[in-house]
Amino acid sequence: MLPVSSQAAQTLSFVKGHGTENDFVLIPDHDGSLRLEDSLVRRLADRRAGLGADGVIRVVRTAAADEPQVRALAAEAEWFMDYRNADGSIAEMCGNGTRVIAAYLRREHLVSSPEFALATRAGVKRIRAVDDAGDSQDGGYVPGERYAVDMGTWRVVAPGVLAERGHDALVALAGLDPLPGLSIDMGNPHTVVALPEEADLMALDLQVAPLVNPRPPHGTNVEFAQLLGPGHLQMRVYERGVGETRSCGTGACAAALAVMLWSGAPRDNDAWRVDLPGGTVQVTALPGGSVELAGPARLVADGVYHLT
Amino acid sequence: MLPVSSQAAQTLSFVKGHGTENDFVLIPDHDGSLRLEDSLVRRLADRRAGLGADGVIRVVRTAAADEPQVRALAAEAEWFMDYRNADGSIAEMCGNGTRVIAAYLRREHLVSSPEFALATRAGVKRIRAVDDAGDSQDGGYVPGERYAVDMGTWRVVAPGVLAERGHDALVALAGLDPLPGLSIDMGNPHTVVALPEEADLMALDLQVAPLVNPRPPHGTNVEFAQLLGPGHLQMRVYERGVGETRSCGTGACAAALAVMLWSGAPRDNDAWRVDLPGGTVQVTALPGGSVELAGPARLVADGVYHLT
Repeated sequence: MLPVSSQAAQTLSFVKGHGTENDFVLIPDHDGSLRLEDSLVRRLADRRAGLGADGVIRVVRTAAADEPQVRALAAEAEWFMDYRNADGSIAEMCGNGTRVIAAYLRREHLVSSPEFALATRAGVKRIRAVDDAGDSQDGGYVPGERYAVDMGTWRVVAPGVLAERGHDALVALAGLDPLPGLSIDMGNPHTVVALPEEADLMALDLQVAPLVNPRPPHGTNVEFAQLLGPGHLQMRVYERGVGETRSCGTGACAAALAVMLWSGAPRDNDAWRVDLPGGTVQVTALPGGSVELAGPARLVADGVYHLT
Repeated sequence: MLPVSSQAAQTLSFVKGHGTENDFVLIPDHDGSLRLEDSLVRRLADRRAGLGADGVIRVVRTAAADEPQVRALAAEAEWFMDYRNADGSIAEMCGNGTRVIAAYLRREHLVSSPEFALATRAGVKRIRAVDDAGDSQDGGYVPGERYAVDMGTWRVVAPGVLAERGHDALVALAGLDPLPGLSIDMGNPHTVVALPEEADLMALDLQVAPLVNPRPPHGTNVEFAQLLGPGHLQMRVYERGVGETRSCGTGACAAALAVMLWSGAPRDNDAWRVDLPGGTVQVTALPGGSVELAGPARLVADGVYHLT
């Protein structure tokens, strides 16, 4: 296996896509012959000198993955999402990214069923192609179809405190009195703040990080959620170490779950519509304690990147 | 001429490129058959939902341009740079953009000589392909070749004040005592600040706009320039209405000219190397009162954008 830079081909095929404006460069590498160096990931993800993306996804057959623990999933899932952050580091999973790779696999007829498994470093994820109404998509790829992904289990960080007073933290933001927040672990940490109905969500100044008290030891992502009606909320998110983003898949799940928890325990198959700045997703509490995220994915462009 | 959205083809060919990290989406439209709506420009330039760029350049034969005053240039220049800002508005010229369109025209053999004319809304610009040393490139396109563009005439806004005390404004930035600045008109307004040798250019906080006193009626771009040696300076730029950028072609010209002026009038063919965060350019004072900007251009990717 050669590093890309010493291969004869001086171009790299790519697909650019996004899920609720969380954007990715996909590098098809079905047989796992590319070595995607950190430096090349950074070049591809660079928004001015490269193609620009929040992350780079190498699409590779699970049987051809580098890591033995990933190859061990090959019997369960034919395709592996090799996810890299824009800085070149390896990541386990990305909810919005799974929908974009799903759209690619469907469009290219690389999966034969609208319901299929995808290998990630966080294990095998079940994906379903669904229509606008959230019903399973029966046939082949249709542009605009959405994808539902089982995001796995979640937990309330302080269930005792939730039962007692409904929140475990106070969150302060410039120009705002401290508001109660609830911490939910989705594999990564979230603190969800319920914004009063009369507050203006769009007017919040998220240029600076919200202050969470007590401060979680490894920081937290903060969601500001506002109820719009039964089963419908809108939110904005400040991602730990990043700043405000237009979408956060685990954040949308945490926000919907917090709102369900504040009105009693989530009922099985309770589904919430969540409006984010980058688009709309649907969050469903699944029987068995996991949560499903459904939303759009759009393949924006196909092309070749010039390595030299 | 149909709007793009009602054409049979549901894809749009593009080239992505940058000049010192000022990046552009080029849309080849040689026969001028596309109507590039503002909304499509915004979609293409969107850094998360689209391809991402500082500007969009439609490459069209001058004879096929929409505007009669551009078509009138067809005898002088075969190709026209139809430049659009990322917000969809029309712009007259873009110095870094001319180099990227030059690289495209050269690579595609659409110009037959390494020295050629390009039509812009600010008139006809002369472009020369040059090698690393700045000497004219004789043969066909070579990846990595640079381009020298005559940026036209410039003027000191207050020549009397320049002669008397060397500056016409005071520029203040967070954590910095006000420093003298000199205003130069390059077609757009610039105020150049000479940063003392011992100051740390990279440590300046350009998150907030510098305060220029007296404030020019239509605002100004501000360049912080620091001498590195004979004929060599480094700079950072805060662009009016935008914020800090990694490169500004007219800003590099203004900074080099100000430094030349502070040590006496610019001599013909006096050439300065200017290091910007996005790369290095060369600024040359030309006989006759105009200024030449030479620098790199890189064609990063070729592809098709999916309109639906």
